Amino acid sequence: MTTATEATPRSEDLYPSRGLPEPRLAPRKDPVVHGSVEDGPLDVVHLRRYEQNGFLTFEGMFDDDEVARYLAELQRLRGDEALADRPETITEPESGQVRSIFAVHRQSELMERLCRDRGVVEIARQLLGGDVYFHQTRVNYKSGFRGKEFYWHSDFETWHQEDGMPRMRAVSCSISLTDNSPHNGPLLLIPGSHQEFLACVGETPENHYQKSLQKQEYGVPDDESLAAMVEKGGIEAATGKAGSVTFFECNVMHGSNSNITPWPRSNCFIVFNSVENAVVDPYCGLEPRPGFIAERDDFSPVEIA
Amino acid sequence: MTTATEATPRSEDLYPSRGLPEPRLAPRKDPVVHGSVEDGPLDVVHLRRYEQNGFLTFEGMFDDDEVARYLAELQRLRGDEALADRPETITEPESGQVRSIFAVHRQSELMERLCRDRGVVEIARQLLGGDVYFHQTRVNYKSGFRGKEFYWHSDFETWHQEDGMPRMRAVSCSISLTDNSPHNGPLLLIPGSHQEFLACVGETPENHYQKSLQKQEYGVPDDESLAAMVEKGGIEAATGKAGSVTFFECNVMHGSNSNITPWPRSNCFIVFNSVENAVVDPYCGLEPRPGFIAERDDFSPVEIA
Repeated sequence: MTTATEATPRSEDLYPSRGLPEPRLAPRKDPVVHGSVEDGPLDVVHLRRYEQNGFLTFEGMFDDDEVARYLAELQRLRGDEALADRPETITEPESGQVRSIFAVHRQSELMERLCRDRGVVEIARQLLGGDVYFHQTRVNYKSGFRGKEFYWHSDFETWHQEDGMPRMRAVSCSISLTDNSPHNGPLLLIPGSHQEFLACVGETPENHYQKSLQKQEYGVPDDESLAAMVEKGGIEAATGKAGSVTFFECNVMHGSNSNITPWPRSNCFIVFNSVENAVVDPYCGLEPRPGFIAERDDFSPVEIA
Repeated sequence: MTTATEATPRSEDLYPSRGLPEPRLAPRKDPVVHGSVEDGPLDVVHLRRYEQNGFLTFEGMFDDDEVARYLAELQRLRGDEALADRPETITEPESGQVRSIFAVHRQSELMERLCRDRGVVEIARQLLGGDVYFHQTRVNYKSGFRGKEFYWHSDFETWHQEDGMPRMRAVSCSISLTDNSPHNGPLLLIPGSHQEFLACVGETPENHYQKSLQKQEYGVPDDESLAAMVEKGGIEAATGKAGSVTFFECNVMHGSNSNITPWPRSNCFIVFNSVENAVVDPYCGLEPRPGFIAERDDFSPVEIA
């Protein structure tokens, strides 16, 4: 286990962003699939699709009973008054409703078990080529009727700049606990967008994370680059029944529209990072974000529950 | 031709709304289809579907050349500086971009021809059982990247309260000039919701229309009633290629999510009202909205171009 005080100083910055006069598209400098077909459950077709598109969705990875149990736990956590005022708990700007609870694997045994699920972890290990640790875990609740949109972004852009993640060797895993229809603001992804790194304009202000979790203002892609990416790859929605799971590469461009339907969207969200890609000092030069948003102390390999 | 000064005084209010202590669902008191199969181009299957769902979409009513011509005209109007400061032109609150231009059949010969298109007008006449007039016409431009959501509403609730439309005998016609995909904030409709009238809480403030065209605050359906309607009828999106046309009944509940895709949505929007259903004094008791939003002077039957 490496601790914060031992954190590697920044090496060469392979993906500079922000503070630039113009947005800039540069080729990716890391593999997309770091493991091989021998390393895990995914076959060649899956690996090739992930390589090309930057994401994979699997229907029915969790059955109805499992979904019901985890959803009940998510609702319990949202109503837990002891959690309400903690910094790990993020609320909607207008309604004050709980939208996300971070570091959820430390706040609920049941959610920890979900984050360590064999099926999930084995895929993450295969995609990242070896042992992985939790860079971030959370549960999200996007309410019906007044669910807000989340604008396009590459997670890696933020994780690199604000958390000091050196390379593209991380994967997000979204476990759906409610149905994702085309109409209730599903995750939208731009296939192939992970093959380029979009450097954004604008400096990073201090304590940016407190605002950025509610509304992005920095690290926001420009219209022209987004249009070019969509022109090339189109847009796909990660729709599916509760119990489906989407893995998406750390640099794939994604976002979601608002949700005026009565159907809320809840999920458990896990960011796996390779233990060989542990964070260093943030590349934006500011203080790192808190540990519950980006792990800085515990890089020990995730063990299967 | 009846003029505003001759407008019928309000008769009995069949659909009271607003200023109520609680929202209330009441059965519809008017037919949905006012004409018959002999009156026009729609067959029994179409008429029955409209009766049941409250809307119909037709693909390819306008070909690519027609679409290109009307879309170019829409873009010309949006850029017309003489129109920019007129009250008929509505802009986005944040960006200042033109979102809608009202009474568009008076501002463009080409758009007037579109509003009087034979295929469109004959369907409107059949659905409303006889001659129709323009209650409202407009072009809409929902921008890409930052297209705002539009919350659920029944048009009739507003037209009855704020414009004095006595009965449910009007139909909206949306002519798509761009593709509507599931992802770029298409029109969402609740099938069957036109069979009930949802009375809303809250009084109508004076000059409500100036704000309501940008953001609704009154005549907004409550969560419980919406959830019940969706439980019964589900949600359908009016997706289709440019050139497709959707007719939807004046009381069907509809709205749209935001649009973060690069694909804008543009359409020409026409509200046909039966000449036997011309507006009277507004049922909310306030001054009526301006004539470019709700026709009060010219109830003469639309002639086919």
